[in-house]
Amino acid sequence: MGLTLSELAQRLGVDLRGEGDRVITSVGTLQGGGEGALGFLANPAYRRYLTGTRLSAVLLSAEDAADCPVAALVSDNPYADYARAVRLLYPRRKPAPGVHESALIDPAAQIDAGASIAEQVVVGPGARIARGVRLGPACIIGENVSIGEDSELVARVTVLAAARIGRRACIQPGAVIGAEGFGLAASGEGWEKVPQLGSVVIGDDVDIGANTTIDRGALEDTVIEDGVRIDNQVQVAHNVFIGAHTAIAGCVGISGSARIGRHCRLAGGVGVVGHLEIADGVTVTGMSMVTRSISRPGTVWSAGTPLMENHEWRRNAVRMKQLDAQARRLSGIERKLLK
Amino acid sequence: MGLTLSELAQRLGVDLRGEGDRVITSVGTLQGGGEGALGFLANPAYRRYLTGTRLSAVLLSAEDAADCPVAALVSDNPYADYARAVRLLYPRRKPAPGVHESALIDPAAQIDAGASIAEQVVVGPGARIARGVRLGPACIIGENVSIGEDSELVARVTVLAAARIGRRACIQPGAVIGAEGFGLAASGEGWEKVPQLGSVVIGDDVDIGANTTIDRGALEDTVIEDGVRIDNQVQVAHNVFIGAHTAIAGCVGISGSARIGRHCRLAGGVGVVGHLEIADGVTVTGMSMVTRSISRPGTVWSAGTPLMENHEWRRNAVRMKQLDAQARRLSGIERKLLK
Amino acid sequence: MGLTLSELAQRLGVDLRGEGDRVITSVGTLQGGGEGALGFLANPAYRRYLTGTRLSAVLLSAEDAADCPVAALVSDNPYADYARAVRLLYPRRKPAPGVHESALIDPAAQIDAGASIAEQVVVGPGARIARGVRLGPACIIGENVSIGEDSELVARVTVLAAARIGRRACIQPGAVIGAEGFGLAASGEGWEKVPQLGSVVIGDDVDIGANTTIDRGALEDTVIEDGVRIDNQVQVAHNVFIGAHTAIAGCVGISGSARIGRHCRLAGGVGVVGHLEIADGVTVTGMSMVTRSISRPGTVWSAGTPLMENHEWRRNAVRMKQLDAQARRLSGIERKLLK
Repeated sequence: MGLTLSELAQRLGVDLRGEGDRVITSVGTLQGGGEGALGFLANPAYRRYLTGTRLSAVLLSAEDAADCPVAALVSDNPYADYARAVRLLYPRRKPAPGVHESALIDPAAQIDAGASIAEQVVVGPGARIARGVRLGPACIIGENVSIGEDSELVARVTVLAAARIGRRACIQPGAVIGAEGFGLAASGEGWEKVPQLGSVVIGDDVDIGANTTIDRGALEDTVIEDGVRIDNQVQVAHNVFIGAHTAIAGCVGISGSARIGRHCRLAGGVGVVGHLEIADGVTVTGMSMVTRSISRPGTVWSAGTPLMENHEWRRNAVRMKQLDAQARRLSGIERKLLK
Repeated sequence: MGLTLSELAQRLGVDLRGEGDRVITSVGTLQGGGEGALGFLANPAYRRYLTGTRLSAVLLSAEDAADCPVAALVSDNPYADYARAVRLLYPRRKPAPGVHESALIDPAAQIDAGASIAEQVVVGPGARIARGVRLGPACIIGENVSIGEDSELVARVTVLAAARIGRRACIQPGAVIGAEGFGLAASGEGWEKVPQLGSVVIGDDVDIGANTTIDRGALEDTVIEDGVRIDNQVQVAHNVFIGAHTAIAGCVGISGSARIGRHCRLAGGVGVVGHLEIADGVTVTGMSMVTRSISRPGTVWSAGTPLMENHEWRRNAVRMKQLDAQARRLSGIERKLLK
Repeated sequence: MGLTLSELAQRLGVDLRGEGDRVITSVGTLQGGGEGALGFLANPAYRRYLTGTRLSAVLLSAEDAADCPVAALVSDNPYADYARAVRLLYPRRKPAPGVHESALIDPAAQIDAGASIAEQVVVGPGARIARGVRLGPACIIGENVSIGEDSELVARVTVLAAARIGRRACIQPGAVIGAEGFGLAASGEGWEKVPQLGSVVIGDDVDIGANTTIDRGALEDTVIEDGVRIDNQVQVAHNVFIGAHTAIAGCVGISGSARIGRHCRLAGGVGVVGHLEIADGVTVTGMSMVTRSISRPGTVWSAGTPLMENHEWRRNAVRMKQLDAQARRLSGIERKLLK
């Protein structure tokens, strides 16, 4: 198998500088790759490896191409074109359609003949599994859940509450979609539980990471729009709305009824308080807590203190408890000096 | 199905203002609900939707009832009464008792005839499953585990280490109860593992969220008292004690041997250091780290920096590393001025 | 069963002060243990329980032994020796070798006759399961995965991507190893997904906690060296490297391509930004975000603000947004005074 550089250049729509009939069979890094392999240069930190590379070809910008010692595929977006090249060079094996004999499919479920259902999958009544769907081992698909064409649930994914998942989803192991979230009303000496009646609606081309949880809505639905990418161990509470093409990195927690715009980026460990709104295109840097709505699109937000050596941090942390007193002392001095 | 407003008012013990024979069949939001639906008003932020509502009835305070354009159910605690109303209007379907043929029950386990055991459940020797328990698909119940009456393990819950779970628990998918926690003794160049011999004891009416983990005790037991509510992706380490009716939101982490009082509230993403004690009724706000014991009941605690725009945060974050030096400079100036 | 104190002292290589023929059958705490039980004293906070203990023997330092009212086993490292004593007194039951009839083993998998495979395990083609391995209920072992001698996957562990796990691993329920991580290239209005082709390589004597996730590498492998200990709900992204004997507490998140040295300690809730390096022996305290490489071995690092009562925190938090302005005012005053 493999593709010639000419074929690759043509299918990616990029310019080739070098021998077109060289065959590419694999991908590799600038520093580690070898004969027959294609790599890419996007992050300037790796530019130092370019001149010594033993790759057969490199996807890179026109600017970097001048220094490329091997064949160059010149791209406006080398990393995205690399992603496409990988898919051309390593096409996904499609599992054979059919239902494994150990799977337990309710007679009132609709499984398309072109779907592939692996070992020990459980599918409840009224569920609809479309053409090209792959349910990996031990997935649990609850009553009235629907899963759109060509979606893949890798293994051990749980989908409940009549959730509707669009086309081409990719959901990693351990993800739980449609569990009952944290609906509690303080009452007397304890808590009254608020039954959760809503569902989860997920658009097309959505990725959901391993052990991520997305709760069903309380009354209306939790909504994840098209093209949203969610990493591992993310918690999405009831009635959250996540706009199209937003990317959410690992360990983020989003509280109930928060509305995240489109094309946002939440870095790892971010927390979002409930019932607030974040405009389109907003970025929040790692481990920040979003405690207020953000109305200006495209803005970048942060919280937290910088990393310090512990002995230095201890000295400064004490002062964080004195900030208000200090500010008052400062104002007092200024008043005195201005007299 | 449905209930008249008179019936609802009577069963909830609230006052009705409006036609008692109107039939309520569903619930809805103030802004989205319609004919035949009941809603509630508890959060003042939603008061603006009241006058335009198309619900048939609203649960609200006496104060708000004056502005209610439809039938009013006047309550001292509208949200808690709404929770009860939902349970009346949407009674949970009880799954038929019995054991699915794909479940693997050890002959030395005791399963009450009134329990419902779904597909692919595994129950080990010595386990006791009480009347009215529902074990959803693919739950794993280890040796000598006991689960009290009317508890529901929704799906794919793992319970090990002879854990004892009380009555009316509700445990969401992916939760792991009784795993061996992080018991390590530094030794030579590495770590000596400390075998964990304790168990987990969980009271009545406890909720446990999706993908939450509660470790077995090292020697004595990890204890969760009655009425505790734990959200998704919470980590509870060995020998933690959580007092009755405490609520713990998503992504909280509690380190080993911490003691949390009763009626506490830990908001999302809070971390609690090991071996410390938190008094009853304490609230900790989101993403704060509790690094010391809190002895005064009912107090509210916080940590962290406020959210800022990134350019503003960068300027201020640099100064967080200079706080101690700045405080000393301020003192120096004061000394000079006092001379 | 049980061991005499003489036998215990000899097998642990420690000095005994007391009757050697006393039989020890269990372990207990200083404050709760009783007749026939062994305890330990390592944390000075528990020294107050020593004089009143009803244990039959205590592992402790020579310094503390003077105050020990019962037999003393004098150790340089009481906690590590206690760990060893527990293993002597409570040897793990070895499950009988063999494959449960409900397990689904691909004909092209190699299962050693000395391995124990529990209920509903799924093993894919090309997988190799070594002697003494225990796969607990519902583990999923993907294509070409290999698991080394005497490793235990407790229950419901998912291993994919041809991951190689060494000897004597202990992996808790819900862990997911080898899922496809967050490989995204911004492209046009959305994201281009970068197929993940690497694997996960895990050394010997590695512990992995419940619901922890370790992603496969993008091109090269994610690497966990010998003796690494990882707690619950930890997220390890693609191409992370974790050096030997490093311990990582619960809820830590490590971003892609980060390199953590050997003998490091990351406390609970720590976040590590991608593509940076942490030297050997570094400690990071709880909930700190590591935003830069740490090159000096053995250093201790921290971030975050101290816990304050909420009313105090609110006053101080406002000032955190004024720090830069305040610093400038302070400099202004100093200039004025120096004139």
